[in-house]
Amino acid sequence: MSNKPYKGFEPNWLRTPAPEGSYRSIFRWGDPNFFKFPKESLYKMMKETFKMTDDDFKEYTDDIGFDQVDLSDHPSNIDPKHIKALKKIVGDDFVTTEDYPRLAVAYGCTGYDLLRLRHKQVENVPDVVVYPDTTEQVEQIVEYAVKNAIPIYVYGGGSSVTRGMEAMKGGITLDMRKRFNKVISFNEIDQTITVQAGMSGPKLEQTLNDAPILFGAKRAYTCGHFPQSFEYSSVGGWTVTRGAGQNSSYYGTIADIVLSQKYATPIGKIVTSHYPREATGPNLNQIMMGSEGTFGILTEVTLRVFRYMPENRKRFSYMFKNWETAMDAAREMMQCEAGYSSVFRLSDPEETNLMLRLYNVDDTPIAPMLDKFGYKDMERCMFLGFTDGEKGFSKNVAKNIAKIALKHGAMPMTGFVTKSWEKGRFNDPYLRDSLMDFSIITDTLECTVNWSNMAQVHRDVRKVCHALPNTVVTTHMSHCYPQGANLYFIFITKMNDADEFKRYHTTILDAIQKSGAAISHHHGIGKMFAPWLEGYIGEKEYGVFKVLKNYFDPDYLMNPGGTIGLDLLPEEKKFLNERKDYR
Amino acid sequence: MSNKPYKGFEPNWLRTPAPEGSYRSIFRWGDPNFFKFPKESLYKMMKETFKMTDDDFKEYTDDIGFDQVDLSDHPSNIDPKHIKALKKIVGDDFVTTEDYPRLAVAYGCTGYDLLRLRHKQVENVPDVVVYPDTTEQVEQIVEYAVKNAIPIYVYGGGSSVTRGMEAMKGGITLDMRKRFNKVISFNEIDQTITVQAGMSGPKLEQTLNDAPILFGAKRAYTCGHFPQSFEYSSVGGWTVTRGAGQNSSYYGTIADIVLSQKYATPIGKIVTSHYPREATGPNLNQIMMGSEGTFGILTEVTLRVFRYMPENRKRFSYMFKNWETAMDAAREMMQCEAGYSSVFRLSDPEETNLMLRLYNVDDTPIAPMLDKFGYKDMERCMFLGFTDGEKGFSKNVAKNIAKIALKHGAMPMTGFVTKSWEKGRFNDPYLRDSLMDFSIITDTLECTVNWSNMAQVHRDVRKVCHALPNTVVTTHMSHCYPQGANLYFIFITKMNDADEFKRYHTTILDAIQKSGAAISHHHGIGKMFAPWLEGYIGEKEYGVFKVLKNYFDPDYLMNPGGTIGLDLLPEEKKFLNERKDYR
Repeated sequence: MSNKPYKGFEPNWLRTPAPEGSYRSIFRWGDPNFFKFPKESLYKMMKETFKMTDDDFKEYTDDIGFDQVDLSDHPSNIDPKHIKALKKIVGDDFVTTEDYPRLAVAYGCTGYDLLRLRHKQVENVPDVVVYPDTTEQVEQIVEYAVKNAIPIYVYGGGSSVTRGMEAMKGGITLDMRKRFNKVISFNEIDQTITVQAGMSGPKLEQTLNDAPILFGAKRAYTCGHFPQSFEYSSVGGWTVTRGAGQNSSYYGTIADIVLSQKYATPIGKIVTSHYPREATGPNLNQIMMGSEGTFGILTEVTLRVFRYMPENRKRFSYMFKNWETAMDAAREMMQCEAGYSSVFRLSDPEETNLMLRLYNVDDTPIAPMLDKFGYKDMERCMFLGFTDGEKGFSKNVAKNIAKIALKHGAMPMTGFVTKSWEKGRFNDPYLRDSLMDFSIITDTLECTVNWSNMAQVHRDVRKVCHALPNTVVTTHMSHCYPQGANLYFIFITKMNDADEFKRYHTTILDAIQKSGAAISHHHGIGKMFAPWLEGYIGEKEYGVFKVLKNYFDPDYLMNPGGTIGLDLLPEEKKFLNERKDYR
Repeated sequence: MSNKPYKGFEPNWLRTPAPEGSYRSIFRWGDPNFFKFPKESLYKMMKETFKMTDDDFKEYTDDIGFDQVDLSDHPSNIDPKHIKALKKIVGDDFVTTEDYPRLAVAYGCTGYDLLRLRHKQVENVPDVVVYPDTTEQVEQIVEYAVKNAIPIYVYGGGSSVTRGMEAMKGGITLDMRKRFNKVISFNEIDQTITVQAGMSGPKLEQTLNDAPILFGAKRAYTCGHFPQSFEYSSVGGWTVTRGAGQNSSYYGTIADIVLSQKYATPIGKIVTSHYPREATGPNLNQIMMGSEGTFGILTEVTLRVFRYMPENRKRFSYMFKNWETAMDAAREMMQCEAGYSSVFRLSDPEETNLMLRLYNVDDTPIAPMLDKFGYKDMERCMFLGFTDGEKGFSKNVAKNIAKIALKHGAMPMTGFVTKSWEKGRFNDPYLRDSLMDFSIITDTLECTVNWSNMAQVHRDVRKVCHALPNTVVTTHMSHCYPQGANLYFIFITKMNDADEFKRYHTTILDAIQKSGAAISHHHGIGKMFAPWLEGYIGEKEYGVFKVLKNYFDPDYLMNPGGTIGLDLLPEEKKFLNERKDYR
């Protein structure tokens, strides 16, 4: 996925940075001066798939969002006395009712969000944005908001794909990016760091890498948590949604990495235990994680940290003959008790087809060899990853992966493919923006499966996707465990209407729910997946979430408007699959 | 700890099996024909420590409990219509109001229980004992009991040290041992087994070892969970108390091993997820574990299972010069990312002194060498364990442990010590019975610490113990993690009165609570630790447990009478330590 020159016609890819204050500066991903376009072979593939011509890529489908944000149709509607009170808590400069900062915290990154923003369909914005500095300030804001019945939302990194932070009821949004992103303490004895919830992924990782300089630590550390959204994600977002990074097979998901949490809730401060294990009743850490802002505002998080030892990393990649053999091999790798690799990613045949182009393998001598040795297009499955940990551990994991892959008839593909993947791992969202200018939209859905229902879920969900018009759907398995794995579906389609996208998205979510898989492995629920949650969990089981909500936030002021389904009406819920007994 | 003949005077150790139907058959540990006595050097040490003479060991302090159980002072007090109804559910032969089976399910294994039983102090017994066969029967019993306001208790393996199953309010006790101990399904693809909650440790392990014969499996498996109480513990007990086995540093505690649970609660059946990770709100598995029977009756549990590969096990033992160096080494072993050993046990100087005798090291040429090389008595610390897992993994773990131990000045002690420990690991409770006949009582208390407060907790708790009369207190670290470990205190004292024991026990629990450690790493809370729980968790945080209780069991019929503090009066609670912010 290089920005190499095309031999033939090259689409009119947008190369101009979005103006400050523009809509585009909100909906485009990240760094204003960074762009990413598909290479020529991929562009050709898309034209074929979506029956488009070069002409379709001469003009942008729509307005590209260079206008200045204007919310005159959505004025801030909050009593000035509240503004005054909030300014008293955080300081005059850290409360705003201006248009741009209000819109900037209103949307996340699902296709539905991007399409709405591209079309200036502004539905829900907060009345006021507040930039807190300290935990005490957040506690005071929550107390004030509850006393005055004002809804509160939180904007962390901004990369939610579930409409997690959308301010459905207006009110206050706390934008954590500006100030609530500091290190509170670093404890090298316990290998932990305590940070404010707005701490960003890159700042956290840099801090840990620099621990010897910053804290006089004996060595450098890593956070071990690298979701694709890493660059625009926050520790708070990771935690309340139960996120997982791409290296989770070794480091664990955030639910494993978090040691302790502190919340500002309507009933007061809640502090969870900071011990690795205990037998003292239900686990409060695991109750608060997954609450997605509905029980209170996460203020501080203590994370386990890991030793930074990139010198021990072993990269690998293999090609399997087909999905069945590849699944068997992956399962054996996770069950053989030789340790887990850090990144562990197995693509199905359709994704493999795409990835070979994306990772430029089609330009190498490897490509013709694959066919020659019977690894056939649309059957073969690419597997890649790398190990982490102490030198001997890392080596042993890689050695066992090699042994099992070869035993299952795989062909080694060298570290080249893995390196290509690493290059693109955090910047594919830039590519997404480029394509959307021409109505090609990419989005993802994911779920958890056990090994024993993986083949069926993969088949059922793909079948539904392929029945949809203009759809490429690729799947990979990642975040693996001895008892199952995450299945991650990426779909690419031609579409430019937000409501059409929502219907499309709903069809796939219905399919995941009907297949019996866990409705989310790591994206969380937010407002977009909420209608399915009670059906997935079970009514009596879901009742637990409701009593917890009523305990912490009886007035429904914390992230209200459907988050994790707590204030949905019965008719807004979907009950598609009665959970069967596991056997 | 052999049964070798003594050279000098040998105490009148009881060698007669307890008669059927006797009190002793209830309070003694396990196999009626197995006995265990201290060897001569240990006997001498006890005489010295407790200022006793051979004369004190000629006669038993008290009645040894050979009488037939007689509960005529505690008649079953339940309406015959309920007996009829219960018989209709489980069959005529599986409901009893007889004395012996009622007392047999009334007590666990804390010193307080054993002393009460030795003195025939019967306080709380159920009115009726029921032996369910199926999940549906348990569901019907719960439904019936709730309709008729009858309290329900569960007796699993019987080895609670927290008065977990004591029927404070009478009513029904479900004795799971007789029939509710069957395998429901075995899934080799996912490496899971689903069992009824009454499944015993040894039966489960045997089943998994025999998987090729019983289920046509490709290989043998292990449950990975081996608490000291293994032989008289149940899967249900492990789960609801959040237990940990001695091999938990590698296999995880039961909270890691459990994949899914099913409960019969007053509001109906509750089934938790069976996926390894998910981002679908608060984690219901982690809410139900730790409920200790207060939310409902655990009926079925799905456990992750592991490959049975004893051929890969590497045993190790080392002697460190002192506790500080040993703690540093242990921390490095847990943080170096080379994988964790399965058993990981580090004794403090006082325990090392005792263990060298217990493991017969004092009879070997190793003993004089220790002194010679500067590993001084009451300073030196013994460290032992073994690794598990795939061959290369296991080898790498052992290699790194060796490297770190030697770097920290430890002396290798061969596999001999570890093998001695393994011999005794499940049968020390027999020794306890022998000593109690002469008023010497042993019991344990344990907690979780972070590495950064380990030294302080160890010092504070030992200080309080040593201020108690006639007390030997030994400590080991086990169940270790990168962020901390379990500290396990074993105390031996001369005492024969249940109330005196309770006061003594309370003093140590107060000390643990004041030290700031987690009040239990794996014994759970039950009724005995309950007064400290709310103080440990925090009042607002503990409120979560109460709303959960009110949701599942609004009439307080499930294990009522103080379990995890839910129905304690405010004046029965202790608030000794305000939780400080973790830094």
